[in-house]
This record gives sequence, structure tokens and C-alpha cells, in this order.
Amino acid sequence: MNLPLGFRYAAMCAGIRKVLKDDLALIVSDTPASAAAVFTKNRVVAAPVEVARHNLRAARGKARAWLVNAGNANCATRTGEQVALECVRAAARCLGVNPYEVLPASTGVIGVEMDARLVVTALPSLTAALDASKFDQVANAILTTDTHAKTAFAEVKGVRFAAMTKGSGMIQPRMATTLGFVMTDASIAPSALRTILKRACSSTYNRISVDGDTSTNDTLSVFANGAAGVKTTERVFETALTEVLESLARQIAQDGEGARKLVTIDVEGASSTAAAERIARSIANSPLVKTAIAGSDPNWGRVLCAAGYSGAVFDPRKTDIDMQGVPVCRAGLAADFSEDELKRKLDAKECRIQFTIRGKGRGRARFWTCDFTEEYIRINASYRT
Amino acid sequence: MNLPLGFRYAAMCAGIRKVLKDDLALIVSDTPASAAAVFTKNRVVAAPVEVARHNLRAARGKARAWLVNAGNANCATRTGEQVALECVRAAARCLGVNPYEVLPASTGVIGVEMDARLVVTALPSLTAALDASKFDQVANAILTTDTHAKTAFAEVKGVRFAAMTKGSGMIQPRMATTLGFVMTDASIAPSALRTILKRACSSTYNRISVDGDTSTNDTLSVFANGAAGVKTTERVFETALTEVLESLARQIAQDGEGARKLVTIDVEGASSTAAAERIARSIANSPLVKTAIAGSDPNWGRVLCAAGYSGAVFDPRKTDIDMQGVPVCRAGLAADFSEDELKRKLDAKECRIQFTIRGKGRGRARFWTCDFTEEYIRINASYRT
Repeated sequence: MNLPLGFRYAAMCAGIRKVLKDDLALIVSDTPASAAAVFTKNRVVAAPVEVARHNLRAARGKARAWLVNAGNANCATRTGEQVALECVRAAARCLGVNPYEVLPASTGVIGVEMDARLVVTALPSLTAALDASKFDQVANAILTTDTHAKTAFAEVKGVRFAAMTKGSGMIQPRMATTLGFVMTDASIAPSALRTILKRACSSTYNRISVDGDTSTNDTLSVFANGAAGVKTTERVFETALTEVLESLARQIAQDGEGARKLVTIDVEGASSTAAAERIARSIANSPLVKTAIAGSDPNWGRVLCAAGYSGAVFDPRKTDIDMQGVPVCRAGLAADFSEDELKRKLDAKECRIQFTIRGKGRGRARFWTCDFTEEYIRINASYRT
Repeated sequence: MNLPLGFRYAAMCAGIRKVLKDDLALIVSDTPASAAAVFTKNRVVAAPVEVARHNLRAARGKARAWLVNAGNANCATRTGEQVALECVRAAARCLGVNPYEVLPASTGVIGVEMDARLVVTALPSLTAALDASKFDQVANAILTTDTHAKTAFAEVKGVRFAAMTKGSGMIQPRMATTLGFVMTDASIAPSALRTILKRACSSTYNRISVDGDTSTNDTLSVFANGAAGVKTTERVFETALTEVLESLARQIAQDGEGARKLVTIDVEGASSTAAAERIARSIANSPLVKTAIAGSDPNWGRVLCAAGYSGAVFDPRKTDIDMQGVPVCRAGLAADFSEDELKRKLDAKECRIQFTIRGKGRGRARFWTCDFTEEYIRINASYRT
């Protein structure tokens, strides 16, 4: 896959993580790019999120670089803002750009002071290492409990998209999730980019959950630098962006902490999109549904129960549920199916739950989650230690 | 502890469970008792809940008996209502009371047809076995994944309360939880009983969570038959009832599926009681907080993060967090504490999280939950099979 033109990447180990592994990365557009981002809706917001939001506004939707670190969220820290600003200023100096054009993003443990000197000291070598080919190295540097890098690419009508993301736990984005960076050499105005990103995000990143926890650092961003030199319609742009974001979102759910299965939930026939999303989210977050999937148990009663407490209004007696395409519930009652056969089908790496309300409702939503295994507990009972 | 006067109990194995264990029980008041109950807020409601609610209304808050079964929730079944009504009528015949005075309650698997004949056939022997001393036997018969019976007693100013409950998973009551039965020989009017039960429930049963799932069968009820023959003020009655319900609620959280620790969460200084409850509930439901407690990890960042996405408005920079009485966060920042020492303290069977917002807010809430261990997954990945 061809990378978008006019971007360079670099990553290195600056000593921010507890382990010796790349933990600092730069993504740079050679020219000012139209930039948009959506951030966490958590009331506790990490300093880099505040600074990035402020810089984006100050530079009127134009930006040159993301400075990203893993290993420390720089959240709930005494020196958070100061550290983020110091890092941004140092990066701007090294890159020869305006500090407002550099956006910071952090991921890792909350509540531990971050040492700006580690970043400032590393920046000259990091800048010197910038190269158009180092996309994959950066995609690896931003990971935390992820088991592998998550990337997605698209090429359409002469423009290219390359995107990376991280995220495995503390995943239930409400407006974005964890960290996600999309680079494209398409040309688009900042205001149109903002609108399109928001819309694309609502059907992709806002539709995944691993554990129902919404992080303090969630950031999802697009840089569009126009380096391809061709015109793209907004419609083509939005379709390509949505496709790339959907791929990343699915990869996050699939790589959920401890997960062995990706679960896709489709709700149809709800009274509105919002109602469909509530039902889907409630099913996706139910530990009982997620453990049943882990055990390949076609326990549709738990699915119906989770929909019932979602807050959405629907008639259980008009509800059909299918698992792996097999009817398990019709009109709110058990359908006639072979439990052994369906158990075997639920052993697959991808599971599907379809939840259909009969009638005229046109609300539909697709949601992704993962199964809930003992490994999730193991990872999180000892993450810090 | 003395049991309230004028009640008799019986339990037996009717073959409803997959295993041979008591699964059918009767609780009978010798005279018509003032009765009140709160039920699940789930939109998917089991047939016995509908019938019990209807009967309570039809008999104007008077009742004689609870007919309870474990092993089948009689929910999302084709014959649900018919089965519940048939069982109630058979019990009324055996007891020589009006069918409206018999309330049904069921717990167990959802979506499997229940065989009324098992209950109807068992009822004559069950009725014959009724005895004032068999309280404990009934408390055991209503259990499902619980590891032990949960009971609470009170005696005040000449009246007695005896209460039993069950519940271990699918626990996040919004109006009641699972099954809970309180018997008292105090005298009180049905309307006053309803008001008091609702209030007592809101600070006890509505303040616990094991997994964030709200069941389809939740029922909590009080029978007050006046057999003590003394007058009790409403205030004395409410205090005793609240105490009994709090004990039961704590026992449910403590016996959460796979739990090794009871976690008490206190929120203070929120803008309102509702805001305090939202914050407490969000902390209590966070899998990341609950796994950290399982691992004795004083990871207060996860507590702050969970409060942040609760939806309640508060200033993180005015937030203090204590764990086991040790200050771990002050004004939203890490406090200076010995991590090793606190880790040892978190190995205790009871853990405490205090979340205090500085300022003039008077909203406070106490909430109970449990830690989240691999055992929860093991239990629920194979519950049906």
C-alpha cells in the first residue's frame, strides 16, 4: 500500500516507559495540513488533550506535527500542562515550525509525573531520524497493552490515507478513543474536515467497547496536507475516511485486553438511531453477554436482558435475536435451534449478534466489542506493578 | 435471634433446577399482612413479576404468601404468565386463601419454558411442611450462584424483622434486586409500608453492583403482619428496615460472583445526592477499578477516570481520594504514600474508597461493590452448561 505523500515519521526509546521500548514518536507533515481532532468526553482530561485542543483552535485548524508518547498519560499530574507545553515548544524548535502547529498526545499510566527532560533531550535525534518510510515504527511505538500494531490504508482517486491507532483496555469512546492518527495527502478545508471527522467517528470509534471505561486521553485526528495535488470530492473523502476508521475501530475491539473473539452487534428496527445505539452499547458492555460469548454459550436471554435495561423503549415480544446467523429468539421467545451446533459456530474468532425489533422503526446501529476472558482480569489486576 | 411471630416457611426439591436441591419455597403469613414490593426496572420483565405486581394491586397491599422458585426465571417464555398464574392458584387452593394474596417470584435461567406441573404436584407436600422454624431452609432454597445464604434480623421495641435475599451475578438493581423477602410482625398500613420500602431501598439495594447487569426478575418485598400486637412508630420501623436491608445488600455485594473482597465506596461533596450516586456507581462498575482492587493495586487514577466519565459535574482539581483510609490523591494529584504498605492494606477482605469533592456540595452516597476476579469469568462462561 502506498503511503500518502508529504509525511515523515520517527520513533525512539526516550525512557518514558518502564521497559526499554520505543515510547516517543513524531508524525510530521512537510507543509501545514488541514487538521481536525475529536477528544475524550471524560471530565478528567489529560494535559496534552487540553494543549492539543487549544493549539488546533489557535492555528485555525492547521497543523504540522503530532508528538506522541506512550508509558505516561500525563494526566492528573502537578506539572501536566507545563510538561506538555515544554515538549511542544522543544519539538517546534527542532522542526522549525510554530509551537501552535505541534499537537501533543500521551497514553499510559494516570497520576504519575512525567519528566519533560526525557522528551526534550530525545527530540534532536528524533527529528533527525524523520523519514517517509517509518510509518510502521511509529504505529508500534504508540502501543500499550495492545498485542499488535493497528493500521489501515486506503487509496482512492489519486489520494492516499494511512492511519494508525492504539487501544486495548479502558475502551468505550464517546467521542473518540485512545489514540488514532490518520494521514492523507488529499486536500480539504479545515472546517469541512472537522464536520466529516465527527460524522465518521460517530459510526466507527464511537461504536466500540472493550470494558465500558472511557479514557482521559482519547484523541482521534486527521491531517490532510493536499500533497497529492488532486481534487477530491467531500463525499469520496468521507467514504474513504469512514472505511479507514471502521477498520481501526474493529481492530481495537478485536485486540481488546484478553479478547479471543471480535463480536459484531447489529440492532435494527429501533425507534431511532440513538435508541439502536443504546441497545447495542448495553449488549456490548454486559459482562454476562461477553462471558457467554467467551464460553461459546448461546445464552440469548442475557442479550435480551441487557437490551431491556439499556433505557431504550422497545417491546420485548416483538424482538428477534440471531447469533452467527442462527435464529435463537423469535418474538421474545426461544426459537428452535440446535444448541450443540450453535456452540460450535460460536467457537469462531468472529461472532455476530443480530437484534431486530419488528415493526416500522428505522433506527439501526452497528457496534463492536469482544469477549470477556480471564486474561482481561490478569492483565488489569497487575497493570501498574 | 427471635423470628417474627405469625409466619411459617417451607422448602423442597420440586425438580426445577438441573441439580437435586431445594428449589421451591413458601413463605406464609398466618393472617393477611400489609405487603409492599419493588420490582426490576428492566424493560424485559419476567411473568412472575407482572403477576406479583398485579396481585399486590388487586389485593390493595395485603398478601398472605410468597411462592418462590429457583432454577428457572420464567422469563421470555411462551407460557410464562399462564405458568405463574397456575402455580399461584394451586398454592392459594392448598393454603385456603384468595389467589390475589399469593405472590410468585422466580430466579434462574431466562428463556426456558417452566413446567407448572412440577410446582402444582409439589404444593400439597410443601404446604403440609410449613413450619415457623424453617426460615433457614427457605433462605437456602432460593439461592442460585450464591455461595451461602444471606439473612438479616432485627428486634426493636417488641417487634421482630427476619429477612433473606439471594443474588450474586446480574446485580445492579435500579429499584430492587434479585429476590429479597422481609418478614416482620410489626403493624403498619400498606401505603406507609410502600413509601418506607421505596426510601429504604434507595439507600441500600439500589446502591450495590456486582457486574452492572440488571436482572429481569428483581423483587424485594416486605410483609408486615402485626402479629407482635404492639404499636411501632414509622420512624422506628424505617430505621430497623433500612438496617436489615443494608445488611442484605452488603452481603450480596460481598458474595458477588467470584468476589474475594467487599468494596465500600463513599462519595462526599457532590452537587447533589444524584450526582454523588452517579459517581459512586461509575466507580463501582468500572472493570478497571474492580480488577485493580482484585490485584491490591492502589491505582487511584482509574478511580478518578471512572468518576470523570460518570456524567456528574465536578472539578477534578478539587478531588481527594483515600483508599483504606490512606490519602492517595489530593486536589486531583498523587498524594505522597507508601505503595507497598497500601498494597498490603488492600489485601484485606473489606476495601474502602473515599471520594471527596472539596467545597460546599452536600451530595453524598454510599455504594457497595466487589472486586472482579478470574472466577467471575469462569462462573459465567459456563453458567448454563
